[in-house]
Amino acid sequence: MSKIQDVASRAGVSASTVSNVLNGRKDRMARETLARVEAAIAELRYRPNTTARQLKTGHTPLLGLLVPSIANPMYGAIAREIETQAQERHGFRIMIGNTYRDKDKEARFFDDLMAHGVRGVVIISSLVDEQHFESAGERGLVVVSYDRRATPGVDSGIDHVSVDNFEAARLATEHLIAHGHRRLAFVTAAGITMSRREKISGFHAAAARAGLTAGAQVIEGTPHNEYGDAVMSELGRLEAAKIAAMPAGQRPTAVLAVNDMMALGLMAGLREAGLSVPADMSVVGMDDVFLSALMQPALTTVHLPVAEMAHTIVERLMLRLADAEVPTGEFMFQPSLVSRESVARPPASKSKSI
Amino acid sequence: MSKIQDVASRAGVSASTVSNVLNGRKDRMARETLARVEAAIAELRYRPNTTARQLKTGHTPLLGLLVPSIANPMYGAIAREIETQAQERHGFRIMIGNTYRDKDKEARFFDDLMAHGVRGVVIISSLVDEQHFESAGERGLVVVSYDRRATPGVDSGIDHVSVDNFEAARLATEHLIAHGHRRLAFVTAAGITMSRREKISGFHAAAARAGLTAGAQVIEGTPHNEYGDAVMSELGRLEAAKIAAMPAGQRPTAVLAVNDMMALGLMAGLREAGLSVPADMSVVGMDDVFLSALMQPALTTVHLPVAEMAHTIVERLMLRLADAEVPTGEFMFQPSLVSRESVARPPASKSKSI
Repeated sequence: MSKIQDVASRAGVSASTVSNVLNGRKDRMARETLARVEAAIAELRYRPNTTARQLKTGHTPLLGLLVPSIANPMYGAIAREIETQAQERHGFRIMIGNTYRDKDKEARFFDDLMAHGVRGVVIISSLVDEQHFESAGERGLVVVSYDRRATPGVDSGIDHVSVDNFEAARLATEHLIAHGHRRLAFVTAAGITMSRREKISGFHAAAARAGLTAGAQVIEGTPHNEYGDAVMSELGRLEAAKIAAMPAGQRPTAVLAVNDMMALGLMAGLREAGLSVPADMSVVGMDDVFLSALMQPALTTVHLPVAEMAHTIVERLMLRLADAEVPTGEFMFQPSLVSRESVARPPASKSKSI
Repeated sequence: MSKIQDVASRAGVSASTVSNVLNGRKDRMARETLARVEAAIAELRYRPNTTARQLKTGHTPLLGLLVPSIANPMYGAIAREIETQAQERHGFRIMIGNTYRDKDKEARFFDDLMAHGVRGVVIISSLVDEQHFESAGERGLVVVSYDRRATPGVDSGIDHVSVDNFEAARLATEHLIAHGHRRLAFVTAAGITMSRREKISGFHAAAARAGLTAGAQVIEGTPHNEYGDAVMSELGRLEAAKIAAMPAGQRPTAVLAVNDMMALGLMAGLREAGLSVPADMSVVGMDDVFLSALMQPALTTVHLPVAEMAHTIVERLMLRLADAEVPTGEFMFQPSLVSRESVARPPASKSKSI
């Protein structure tokens, strides 16, 4: 790879002149000289050596991105947005780590980020307690946590960017109630993340408002394998079989899935159990991954403004990397219901009109 | 983060003793001393500084991973495997770049890899000519190309790891022919990659073998938007509308999609056009992304050994990073048909038995 000396000799100038160009000190430079240097830089495709530079600046233009599994389409979608925006607007690249929600894997990832001189990290949806992230902050990492609320009244020293998960579940639940459903189930995976807790609260709030406290149950599936790309849909499939096996009189007529992957698994499992969606049971997801529109029936779900959230994540990291004094904050985005084909009136009340 | 001096003082030894432990020079060291140093390393969670180390060794324990879009579930699946295997077996992390099949974005990614001291890169499915990768090799990058064959008789200086795409399409096509289909279409996106070319050859070979040359057509959709996560399924949806609009007598009775994302879009589009899969038209995909098993009908597709391919990709990079003299090679894996619910006999011949 070309060195600054190569550029200098090709342009017939000194290395310090090239350095001046690279650092924007062009004011008192002859236009013709500037042109020669820039031509040489282009011809040799010269890039300043990041490694050497980071020893001076103390950090490198890399951001860490911690995800449970990049094979999960929802994480893939936000990772793509974060990488593209960090790269195109700031020239930062992304170092990615799949942690399968494993605390030790997360700790090793933080260690490696430090070792690589990376100072900014995005943490996507994790089971570990906030304390873990605070310590990452104390170790000098600038942290943005995605998909979790800040702990009220606590300055964790990290930014929080999330959708309003309470509102997302509330919207979905009220949509089901508006279609006449009175026996509802919220289906999730065992292991309570803050985002899951928020969603469950939104579910209960909407149910209580409609006087359905008795008819609103939370069903938790326990993963059999390690966290992987397919575990959510597999869980949905297993839970669907159990739900289908309930006596028709007690079985929920509508299920709200903790996310779209779970919803896709539920629809497949209900189908296998001989129940038709939405005729026999309505299903709503949360996330609006692009695949949900392709399902049969197309999945009614709650849309998250992924690009806007990624924008905020990247800008907050850049801001705080540039100025450690910037206070951390919480940035919450509003979800919106996307009504497709997976919700109908409950079987018993097909004849009634809304 | 802890320094080597911290470890030394905690263990009550000199920094050079710690350095000896870190570099495996333990032979002539008192077992008790070694134990103290290792305990101090563990207690302080000490990690050698990668940045400093790479200035000595000339490279950093990072691999580049170039993908069109990490939001595409198939790329997400192989990226997850590559990252996990590189990290768990070799302590390497992954720097990822979404290039949307854009040649300039790819070139900038290579530049940044060099600037970061990264010397190993995996290139997943790209439209650009091999020459582009060769130049990356000439610039000192160790390259493994995934999903393309080597150009016969040419030593490109890079490794090629791929599934046998010809065989994948041949398997799928013969499966359709075995079900009595005589009018077949291979649906793909405009822009010929080597893997698409191989698949089209496999499709034609199987059709010709069954004497169906006239009945085997290739349909190419042209993306309207930039390469994104949803473009393949959107294309499938658009092409499905065109196929459904063909006169029933000329319309293919079975379609083979270039990949599962395209197949999911085709199934959604056919449904929207009032055609039922597989009753009115059979659909086969290629890739076997985990979502394909969740579709209604569950998608019949061709499975790729993703974990095994990722293993070879990572080991080849490590081998050639350690020894530049290792000759490059081509590593091809065999696909297998996964028969689910999206294939049946053609409408006209429902009564006949196979």
